[in-house]
Amino acid sequence: MKIALAQLNPTVGDFKGNTARILEYAKRAGEAGAELAVFPELAIPGYPPQDLLEDDNFLAHCQRSLDTIAQATAQPGMPAILCGTALESATRPGKRARNIAALCYDGKVQFIQQKMLLPFYDVFDEQRYFQPAESQSLVEFRGEVLAITICEDAWNDKDFWPERFYANDPVERLLDGSLPDGRKPTHMLNISASPYWEGKQQVRRSMIGAIAKRHGVPAAMSAQVGGNDSLLFDGASFVVNREGEAVAVAKSFEEDLLLFDTTLSHPQTVTPVVDGVEAAWQALAMGIRDYVRKCGFSKVLIGLSGGIDSAVVAALAVDAVGKQNVMGIGMPSEYSSSGSVDDALALANNLGIQCEIMAIRETFNAMDKALEPVFTGTPFGLAEENMQARIRGTLLMSVSNKFGHLVLTTGNKSEMSVGYCTLYGDMVGALAVIGDVWKTKVYQLAHYANREREVIPQNTITKPPSAELRPDQKDTDSLPPYEVLDPILQAYVERYESAEEIVTSQGVDRERVEQVLRLVERSEYKRQQAAPVLKVTAKSFGTGRRFPLAARIRQQL
Amino acid sequence: MKIALAQLNPTVGDFKGNTARILEYAKRAGEAGAELAVFPELAIPGYPPQDLLEDDNFLAHCQRSLDTIAQATAQPGMPAILCGTALESATRPGKRARNIAALCYDGKVQFIQQKMLLPFYDVFDEQRYFQPAESQSLVEFRGEVLAITICEDAWNDKDFWPERFYANDPVERLLDGSLPDGRKPTHMLNISASPYWEGKQQVRRSMIGAIAKRHGVPAAMSAQVGGNDSLLFDGASFVVNREGEAVAVAKSFEEDLLLFDTTLSHPQTVTPVVDGVEAAWQALAMGIRDYVRKCGFSKVLIGLSGGIDSAVVAALAVDAVGKQNVMGIGMPSEYSSSGSVDDALALANNLGIQCEIMAIRETFNAMDKALEPVFTGTPFGLAEENMQARIRGTLLMSVSNKFGHLVLTTGNKSEMSVGYCTLYGDMVGALAVIGDVWKTKVYQLAHYANREREVIPQNTITKPPSAELRPDQKDTDSLPPYEVLDPILQAYVERYESAEEIVTSQGVDRERVEQVLRLVERSEYKRQQAAPVLKVTAKSFGTGRRFPLAARIRQQL
Repeated sequence: MKIALAQLNPTVGDFKGNTARILEYAKRAGEAGAELAVFPELAIPGYPPQDLLEDDNFLAHCQRSLDTIAQATAQPGMPAILCGTALESATRPGKRARNIAALCYDGKVQFIQQKMLLPFYDVFDEQRYFQPAESQSLVEFRGEVLAITICEDAWNDKDFWPERFYANDPVERLLDGSLPDGRKPTHMLNISASPYWEGKQQVRRSMIGAIAKRHGVPAAMSAQVGGNDSLLFDGASFVVNREGEAVAVAKSFEEDLLLFDTTLSHPQTVTPVVDGVEAAWQALAMGIRDYVRKCGFSKVLIGLSGGIDSAVVAALAVDAVGKQNVMGIGMPSEYSSSGSVDDALALANNLGIQCEIMAIRETFNAMDKALEPVFTGTPFGLAEENMQARIRGTLLMSVSNKFGHLVLTTGNKSEMSVGYCTLYGDMVGALAVIGDVWKTKVYQLAHYANREREVIPQNTITKPPSAELRPDQKDTDSLPPYEVLDPILQAYVERYESAEEIVTSQGVDRERVEQVLRLVERSEYKRQQAAPVLKVTAKSFGTGRRFPLAARIRQQL
Repeated sequence: MKIALAQLNPTVGDFKGNTARILEYAKRAGEAGAELAVFPELAIPGYPPQDLLEDDNFLAHCQRSLDTIAQATAQPGMPAILCGTALESATRPGKRARNIAALCYDGKVQFIQQKMLLPFYDVFDEQRYFQPAESQSLVEFRGEVLAITICEDAWNDKDFWPERFYANDPVERLLDGSLPDGRKPTHMLNISASPYWEGKQQVRRSMIGAIAKRHGVPAAMSAQVGGNDSLLFDGASFVVNREGEAVAVAKSFEEDLLLFDTTLSHPQTVTPVVDGVEAAWQALAMGIRDYVRKCGFSKVLIGLSGGIDSAVVAALAVDAVGKQNVMGIGMPSEYSSSGSVDDALALANNLGIQCEIMAIRETFNAMDKALEPVFTGTPFGLAEENMQARIRGTLLMSVSNKFGHLVLTTGNKSEMSVGYCTLYGDMVGALAVIGDVWKTKVYQLAHYANREREVIPQNTITKPPSAELRPDQKDTDSLPPYEVLDPILQAYVERYESAEEIVTSQGVDRERVEQVLRLVERSEYKRQQAAPVLKVTAKSFGTGRRFPLAARIRQQL
């Protein structure tokens, strides 16, 4: 049997658009000879719908769209459709919704499998919305016996995850099971919406591969692609044979229709999986593109400081929405080096984007004067530094309000971790593009941007990082060099290591480690008012990381 | 037997402070003749610890503090202690932590009851952290047979909640059960951390009362009090007799030690429960006070526009932290009415707080000039309106940075709902004090503030609401009058009613309703970057309300 994995990029809540796209892909799959087209988890409402699932009207739309799709399978040339959606729960007490895979053919929903394992960690809140399945069963379809699972259902393998969240393993039970007539599963189909983080493609592949091999059953994962707010879905849907080897792989970071023949166990269409810095680049560009488009905007605005962060964001933005849709603004103060404006203009010139220069000195002086009643006699300090950043933020937002361009925030993960950024200043914007990228990694992105020709000026890459908010300021005045800082932060923020563990494993001075960790804890309030951060690591700032503010936290225990 | 309910106000993560306070209250309870002192849910780490629970070191602190408390019960004069904490889970697979009540006496932890029902809706994420109990059991203590439950365990009564989240009811099973020797429970003890919303005290009381009456078992609820970020805990711990009547009630909105005698079924210490506008006032004042104190600050800063919102926040702040710790700043523009500054100064004078006036005109002009390259030829509009609000935000933050005062945000729930507020402008601040108070309710708070003498100037209360960002602007230029707007918003935001339902139930023009609902949906991005909002209704903006941004949402379906 020929099966097509339809790797779609839905917009949350766009029932009309998503349904039309599902039917269009199904039709294409049918034309290519597929008997079954498999769509991602929650393909009808888009993933994640969040609290929209608490609205009865939203669930009614999910049901109506599923009915439309099921009816369409009666049309000549249409394949069967296996598709994810939310539906109202069939039973109570319990949560009002269920997360299901519906197998539709001959004009009807013929089989429904409810999701059993509902993730509720990091960015996932599924137990907030869904009632878990009480059982799972195999289903027969045109000679094949299918084991249908939904995303997390396949993420509890005891060999793969020594520390498991769930006692039961639905995959094991399904793949060890048989139909009443004794037939065993011939294929596992997993429909998923699995957010990207660096290296996750390999995790998915080896995990599903190991399951397939152990049970001797080929398996396919049909994945969502595209950006939805912070979450980036890389796609790369795939099929593994009974030896666990990939025999078909879809594109990364774009929609795709992947056909495979269940009778063949040798490689068919195998698109190379994008990884490393290229994957991060494509993920971020896709994140910008989809956020801008799905929010109904077309143009973006970036404050260009002449530094590497804003340069990388500008280059990503050009990749995402095209140079005609990117506008840069340079806003030098008296503390800006003369090179800064030149670097910003050179970047804009290399990228072919519009760039305006607006000096902030006069505004700063006027504001300083307004503050005289309370500031008189106080020395220039942090307040005056932040003031410059906030004047810039206000200028950016004013241009945004005037022309309807979306402001992209340019802070990196290292800065956001230690609070080396100004709330309502350089933190303004609709999307924190590189807020999950460590500064040391920002350099890798810059080199990637320059892979074919110099886009980011050499001087921007080589000069020492500086906020340029007071004379001759350098980041290293307040922080360890990024090669030292980033590994400390990574251990603390991403892996919950203690100061002691970090001192031991990294051989850094204890006082220095503790100073860094204190900065992380004291700046939590800034992160809670930050723009959504595009997630590219397993632990990013935002909804996947929830800390109290009015608390004694880790370094203060 | 005499039991004491120790209604504490813990700081999350302050193990040293919380443990000392628990021992101090236990000692006082012992001196008053109590044989058992009952503390709230998670009294040792404080509630809610959020992702701190994912840190092994945090759980180790929970264990060590519990050990310290248990050991202290060996000291002469110390009563037994029933106390909530988190501990590492005893079993896997599953979540790494459990939420427990530990009964300690004779120097040891003698009995542990794990929480069975873990809320995961609105602001609650407990399934993210905790493994639920697999069973519950009665425990014998000095002749009493205790049914110990933790908060949500008692919130699944089928008579009380027709639409239940959980299939099992641990209270029913415990109260219907008996010890192996056949003895029945003589008392239910519920330790809780139950966030305040308007009217919730009555819900708790009648729910626990109904349970006590049905089973003929007296019941006590020992509740946390105090503010932790957005969440406000009102306290009002209570005891009901077997007829379900309140026989002992602790104070609202402050710490208390409530003693009661299990042999008496008539009213003992019954503190009147604070409700209505007085409860909202006390809740908000407590929220400011605890946030400021627990974050390590002492002074607050408020932008005073002469309008009612900032006036109410200033009056609340004076109640919370004292007039010597409140500073106001008036920042008139050329569009401010002459009355505005007078009203702000009169308010400051009535409250006895420092107030500075800083005009923003010069800064505005300087900024307007900086924007000339792109603004030339465009008419004065939204960009220029927001610019004024952002200049004010920057001035406030500059003073905050200079002197270390915490900025209080003054926007109300009506404004936040429709986005009638400027991100990075009037939305700046550490805490959105009245962000969960509808504008019509803000007036009630103003009248409450003036209950003894005129604190908020009459003119502030009577003049038509205006943002004063362009000549002769009134809120009603863009919005329906608040008496019409608030009920629409309440239906939509708090109760998920559809446009149709609102039109039908409120008799408002459909176009007007849809326009309002569209404003709510389009301004979601502002709310996601807002300061934490003090929660006083069942559905407030913040972590209890999670919506996507890049989505077609309800009014666009």
